Amino acid sequence: MILTVTPNLALDVTYRVAELVPEASVRVESVAERAGGKGVNVARVLQALGAATAVTGFVGGATGAAVRRDLAASGLVDELVAIDGETRRTVAVVDAAGGVTILLEPGPVVTPPEWHRLLDRLGALADRADAIVLSGSLPRGLPADASAELVRACAASGRPVLLDASGDALVAGLAARPAVVKPNRAELYEATGGPAPAPDAEADLADVVDRAAALRARGAGAVVVSLGRDGMLALVEGGAWHASLEAGTAVSGNPTGAGDAGVAALALGLVRGEAWPALLREAVAISAAAVLHPLAGGFDAAALARLRGAARVRELVTPTRA
Amino acid sequence: MILTVTPNLALDVTYRVAELVPEASVRVESVAERAGGKGVNVARVLQALGAATAVTGFVGGATGAAVRRDLAASGLVDELVAIDGETRRTVAVVDAAGGVTILLEPGPVVTPPEWHRLLDRLGALADRADAIVLSGSLPRGLPADASAELVRACAASGRPVLLDASGDALVAGLAARPAVVKPNRAELYEATGGPAPAPDAEADLADVVDRAAALRARGAGAVVVSLGRDGMLALVEGGAWHASLEAGTAVSGNPTGAGDAGVAALALGLVRGEAWPALLREAVAISAAAVLHPLAGGFDAAALARLRGAARVRELVTPTRA
Repeated sequence: MILTVTPNLALDVTYRVAELVPEASVRVESVAERAGGKGVNVARVLQALGAATAVTGFVGGATGAAVRRDLAASGLVDELVAIDGETRRTVAVVDAAGGVTILLEPGPVVTPPEWHRLLDRLGALADRADAIVLSGSLPRGLPADASAELVRACAASGRPVLLDASGDALVAGLAARPAVVKPNRAELYEATGGPAPAPDAEADLADVVDRAAALRARGAGAVVVSLGRDGMLALVEGGAWHASLEAGTAVSGNPTGAGDAGVAALALGLVRGEAWPALLREAVAISAAAVLHPLAGGFDAAALARLRGAARVRELVTPTRA
Repeated sequence: MILTVTPNLALDVTYRVAELVPEASVRVESVAERAGGKGVNVARVLQALGAATAVTGFVGGATGAAVRRDLAASGLVDELVAIDGETRRTVAVVDAAGGVTILLEPGPVVTPPEWHRLLDRLGALADRADAIVLSGSLPRGLPADASAELVRACAASGRPVLLDASGDALVAGLAARPAVVKPNRAELYEATGGPAPAPDAEADLADVVDRAAALRARGAGAVVVSLGRDGMLALVEGGAWHASLEAGTAVSGNPTGAGDAGVAALALGLVRGEAWPALLREAVAISAAAVLHPLAGGFDAAALARLRGAARVRELVTPTRA
């Protein structure tokens, strides 16, 4: 079983509208709701790949009850820890032209006893897990080193811990030596300082390797950087690899959740003992298949075989090679 | 007891944000929720005025459960009819500059058996009521003459029925001879045809009287038109009156719910047997007090005495005087 931990999970609400006009009354044409948050997306992808999984994190209030109902309806194992606060909603307002405006509720404030209940639960669950994925942001109320405590609570089991976090949570988590961290390019640059490249600029792989090496030096076992349409780069003990789709492979759609699909593939590949080049190629293929799917947590299964065929991986020769 | 009927009630959600930027991710700073819909607002004002009241309409799903919890917390008597569909939310996104964008969920589709359960419930409740207020829009799934059926189901008790509806629901409801209809100016012009005056244009009282007479001719016992800062006009059997605040009375704030407060005052005045001039003056004063309150369904009780003193009423001499 692969355990996914989503401390700040959400009910993802999608409103379809003709046009979102500020300061007007806007009719919502349809409403869709489902359990969300990065770890929940990872669990959905793992489930679709046939892997056993379980979901934990905090859940509370009427919105939390809706999350639990959706997890049950989706057949996902619910190991959530109940809290007094109300689970947050994210409301994605999608207009007729495809523009998306996202309203992010602040979410609950977690109390110290609730926080310790999650740590205790993680200790018990991690012993039964083959790998643990820690995903996404943290709710309010947690200690400054919460990210490191989460990694430690899971890593005590001896199982690999993948940390997909950003900002302070990423930096703090490194101290607890997660097996893998998976920043995207913007998150990598934020964690290592200096100006971030423009989102549409081609990735500077040598610079990415240097920055990944800095994260390894601060405690990460392996660093996998998701680079959008430039694929993914892994810097691990023993080498560095870059995987991407061959030129001309058409992939357009919804990039939200593509990183989560890649994390699911990484976790599953680690559990299966696959080598890094194969693992990275699969992560790139399934991330692209996720872009083709309209919902985060889903991927286009029909396109996956084609995308696997289009994924190329090459070893990088780097001065930081361990 | 004054019964308020809100067929399409809602959970009113307020999101405070710094700025609502389309196609961005917007952090919501605070979330507030409460039971809403025009009839619920009327009931809140009646309760604050010390009048016994009860709330009915359709309610369903997790959002409906949140509505019921809030009604209970507010001390309002819940006579709602449970349905399979999900009660709608209205999400008001309020920015730091005070701009308000409202997202209106479509709400449930009511089935014929559910519709008949509401009509049956109304028949039983109306016999115990001193007056009945029918407020707001109708959910999907109801017959075209639903508004008239609602008026009939309540009017069978012999108690006065006040209909606060717009568009087709107002026009259809006239056939069932409600005691009072309460359009605002835009709704009056929509129901009687021809171009609507600009929202900030001063009310043409003679034209308003003519149009109100047309609604009386189609079945309304009395027509009360809310005119925003130009006050209210009543055309009844026996005369026409116009009430407004004396010039220079400062009233600024949130006009949402001002009309509902006026309807509450009308219903209470009718039950108490007050004469139309007094009744209209009270409705104008409490509508202004509602503008001074930030939430629909509330009014500034401290300002009400002053506003009562500033409300003036005069009889209109009209060719359509009955």
